[in-house]
Amino acid sequence: MTKITAWAAHEAGGSLTPFEYDPGPLGPHDVELDVLYCGICHSDLSVINNEWGFSAYPAVGGHEVVGRVREMGGEVSHLTKGQTVGLGWHAGYCNTCMSCQSGDQNLCQTAQATIVGHHGGFADRVRAQAASVIPIPDGLNPLKMGPMFCGGITVFNPLVQYNISPLSRTAVIGIGGLGHLALQFLNAWGCHVTAFTSTPEKEEEAVRMGAHATLNSRDDKALAAAAGQFDLIISTVNVTLDWNAYIGTLAPKGRLHMVGAALEPMGIGAFGLIAAQRSVSGSPVGSPATIRHMLDFAERHDIAPVVETFDMKDINVAFDHLKSGDARYRIVLKN
Amino acid sequence: MTKITAWAAHEAGGSLTPFEYDPGPLGPHDVELDVLYCGICHSDLSVINNEWGFSAYPAVGGHEVVGRVREMGGEVSHLTKGQTVGLGWHAGYCNTCMSCQSGDQNLCQTAQATIVGHHGGFADRVRAQAASVIPIPDGLNPLKMGPMFCGGITVFNPLVQYNISPLSRTAVIGIGGLGHLALQFLNAWGCHVTAFTSTPEKEEEAVRMGAHATLNSRDDKALAAAAGQFDLIISTVNVTLDWNAYIGTLAPKGRLHMVGAALEPMGIGAFGLIAAQRSVSGSPVGSPATIRHMLDFAERHDIAPVVETFDMKDINVAFDHLKSGDARYRIVLKN
Repeated sequence: MTKITAWAAHEAGGSLTPFEYDPGPLGPHDVELDVLYCGICHSDLSVINNEWGFSAYPAVGGHEVVGRVREMGGEVSHLTKGQTVGLGWHAGYCNTCMSCQSGDQNLCQTAQATIVGHHGGFADRVRAQAASVIPIPDGLNPLKMGPMFCGGITVFNPLVQYNISPLSRTAVIGIGGLGHLALQFLNAWGCHVTAFTSTPEKEEEAVRMGAHATLNSRDDKALAAAAGQFDLIISTVNVTLDWNAYIGTLAPKGRLHMVGAALEPMGIGAFGLIAAQRSVSGSPVGSPATIRHMLDFAERHDIAPVVETFDMKDINVAFDHLKSGDARYRIVLKN
Repeated sequence: MTKITAWAAHEAGGSLTPFEYDPGPLGPHDVELDVLYCGICHSDLSVINNEWGFSAYPAVGGHEVVGRVREMGGEVSHLTKGQTVGLGWHAGYCNTCMSCQSGDQNLCQTAQATIVGHHGGFADRVRAQAASVIPIPDGLNPLKMGPMFCGGITVFNPLVQYNISPLSRTAVIGIGGLGHLALQFLNAWGCHVTAFTSTPEKEEEAVRMGAHATLNSRDDKALAAAAGQFDLIISTVNVTLDWNAYIGTLAPKGRLHMVGAALEPMGIGAFGLIAAQRSVSGSPVGSPATIRHMLDFAERHDIAPVVETFDMKDINVAFDHLKSGDARYRIVLKN
């Protein structure tokens, strides 16, 4: 078995250096992929920097993988060697808990994260349970598909989970890696779409990506004027905003849905929820079935992230670009 | 037109004294009821004391009315004189907004509250728009039905709104006027029901009212041990609890639903929502159609509040009893 060559952080905040590891024998339900492309997600940085307190070192990030099936365990029969597939936040599920058996593998409380206690896709090869690896339809460009497996599914999943109606008036807070995909999905879903952004130069781009309207997310008057409008707001940011002001922009029965993990507690007023039957909720990535739906939907509607590409060997330059906040809108590394 | 004799507070926190008012001509879509019984709800006290800042004086509380139709406006044809009906938090709707036209009259942003800017049921008679007045099925005891029109519908409504499955594991925080009805509804709905209470002597009663299990709501260890269990928690309390601990007791896709208006902001951690696709939500009373469903359901399942009865003239004594916290479980005034 040849070793896998990866890029690892050896301590919190460390730069990424080449790291070889022996993946051991391939499990019967697992696959090994040759990594073709791998997106960079903000949560790679969070894990590398141990911002969430549960990182394990050496840490090999990379959970927006597009790869080619290189080896399959003896029990894997639904994939073929050479097939182009994607791998996201989860590299395996228990497959037996209530969530897994209900088709909500993404909510499995013992799911294997691809980049925590497992080595991810910043590498020449990566391993995963076959159930967590999804074939990419032929009509989609593999170069751009990596970000769909974390950023994309994270914003697509709520539309499925909450059975969002195309009649809905929706909004997206934060037009970045996740938000620019949310605009595309919501537009194709048939909804009215408003982009909340604090970056004026993104407003025009947001319209190009599917927004029917834009609002400055830091303009209190604009927020107040939008009272009672939205059936769904998806927040992709991880900073603290005036959440009650956003709740005020929700229509009766509206939902403020968090996919960006704001670390500070949200000081939600119960009255704002009760008076108009509003909800605040959150969700992580999606299940394998929902990822498959997303890819079908993306193929039908020509949805893809806007990506900037770096060679895998330039991974540290790519991370500096991510940290600058100037990435438009998602970075993909290629081998 | 004879005047209506009511019990009014003339200033925030004032005791209730007899107050006569001329209701004027009856509107074509309105009805006038002879008040038979009227429940006392905590929100009567909140309005009398102007705790929410929007009270109008003289304030006549009483929004859990059971009455007999005395007069009907010329356009009212779906009720009959002498019919026994109930009147709750809303005494009228705009009937034209999106919420009203969608059957969500309870979310009408210009609905007429029965006891704010309108005189309520602590009186010999009360007026209301006919659309807000619901006939009480013959199989239900009118003496006990007042509290269904605010306390009851407030806890019944979420089961309808969120299409709660009888497969759900549910819990109720606070076993009082609302909570003791929630236990009965959830049990009859087919759910597993846990009662959270901080009053040990209520535990046995909670079981009698439908709880399959009880938990001490102030026992941190018991809360921690209940991690990941509940699909729905209905909170009926208006005090601040450790909301994130309760969110921790929610199963994946679980919902913490507020019907008690805690005044302090809830410091909700986004991570606890995101990790397991949980929601925090709230709702007020229900629509006329949902009230009708509730009454049918209550008749079929023999559900009623446990009430203590006072004569209307002893209203101040009744309020003192409410304030003592010793009411078991809802107070009803009778004329």
